[in-house]
Amino acid sequence: MSAPGRLIGVGTGPGDPDLMTVKAVKALASADVMAYFAKAGRRGNGRGIVDGIVRDDIIELPLYYPVTTEIEKHEDGYISQITDFYEESAVRVAEHLDAGRTVAVLSEGDPLFYGSYMHLHVRLAHRYPTEVIPGVTAMSGCWSQAGVPIVQGDDVLSVLPGTMPEQELVRRLNDTEAAVIMKVGRNLPKIRRALAETGRINQAVYVERGTMANTQMIPLAHKQDDAAPYFSIVLVPGWKDKP
Amino acid sequence: MSAPGRLIGVGTGPGDPDLMTVKAVKALASADVMAYFAKAGRRGNGRGIVDGIVRDDIIELPLYYPVTTEIEKHEDGYISQITDFYEESAVRVAEHLDAGRTVAVLSEGDPLFYGSYMHLHVRLAHRYPTEVIPGVTAMSGCWSQAGVPIVQGDDVLSVLPGTMPEQELVRRLNDTEAAVIMKVGRNLPKIRRALAETGRINQAVYVERGTMANTQMIPLAHKQDDAAPYFSIVLVPGWKDKP
Repeated sequence: MSAPGRLIGVGTGPGDPDLMTVKAVKALASADVMAYFAKAGRRGNGRGIVDGIVRDDIIELPLYYPVTTEIEKHEDGYISQITDFYEESAVRVAEHLDAGRTVAVLSEGDPLFYGSYMHLHVRLAHRYPTEVIPGVTAMSGCWSQAGVPIVQGDDVLSVLPGTMPEQELVRRLNDTEAAVIMKVGRNLPKIRRALAETGRINQAVYVERGTMANTQMIPLAHKQDDAAPYFSIVLVPGWKDKP
Repeated sequence: MSAPGRLIGVGTGPGDPDLMTVKAVKALASADVMAYFAKAGRRGNGRGIVDGIVRDDIIELPLYYPVTTEIEKHEDGYISQITDFYEESAVRVAEHLDAGRTVAVLSEGDPLFYGSYMHLHVRLAHRYPTEVIPGVTAMSGCWSQAGVPIVQGDDVLSVLPGTMPEQELVRRLNDTEAAVIMKVGRNLPKIRRALAETGRINQAVYVERGTMANTQMIPLAHKQDDAAPYFSIVLVPGWKDKP
């Protein structure tokens, strides 16, 4: 039996392929297998980012999420279905590792920061030699593109899901120098109200598809509509004493 | 008069030169001038990271912090001295930009995330064509190296300076799924007490010089001494429901 292969979580960065790290590029150049999560019938953003650099002879292992549009998240049915899916995905990756193949798992942004790769990591990292290659996060891509200084000195930064209740969002915005609000999507009207109530709406910047070709950014107060993709971000900068 | 040069904030990532982005490497390959902040008599970590890739013919512009060891931070003397220094630094960078030279400013980690580059950005970005190239943050480097899944799903992440008062740290640790405590240094005993009081010390991981050759990481509960460099980090992972 051959020695097991290596598991590598590869952060692909926020979208611009040139924002991949040199280490991520090298890992993809030498991996036997490239795995990635994607919606059924789609390629996945991570896979799209590496399009220009991936070798023709790499083994692709797409891991397609089960169709779950008819089940609400947080319902038992959804949770057991998605857990089964992650278990099966880990088994499929492990088959390649057992055969001695190095498996690079693409993860948009940074693998261990809200990344899909984490579901494989917790199932496999204790069983196989594993390496995680960090990536530039979506939020870093957004504030860099927008040129928004986000935190300095002793600022607290809070990363908040836009899914939380309005009063919880208000409370947390009042308790932090800077905030990044993730998962904006249909939560945008609520996020606007929370920012208005805390007097921070005029500093907030809305960014969608940060660093990608079709990116959009605009001061939130200037955004006329409430249309926002799920993965858009609202930046609330700190560094109050800046010159 | 020639057209002004471009200002580029270049994130060098957390320490391992291979964790620079492809875009950062390209920017340094084409920049006329490479500027960086450093302590007097030192080269600065950012400068060290790019050692292997920097061109011989690039113009180096080190910006040495004034000696401030005899003045306490937050005192007026310190603040006016450091403000003067940033003003002068901006003038020196602007001279190159006015002469039509592209200036890459090195910034460890991510430039707009607690980065020294920010002090130039706020003084120059409205006057010159400017680009910010995001980098992998020190905290991403640390949790990736440690293999610690930090946040998933609807987790809140709080980035907290270790300088804050103990009860404030306790309050914030009780109010977040995950935390990254920065600027550990001599605050480590206080951080330990706050983690013990909130029942989180057994999950906490201590990392110093993340991704660098001389890095150290250890579960905080196993660390016997309280010696810690200023830029060490304590990770307090979230994702409570992980399988």
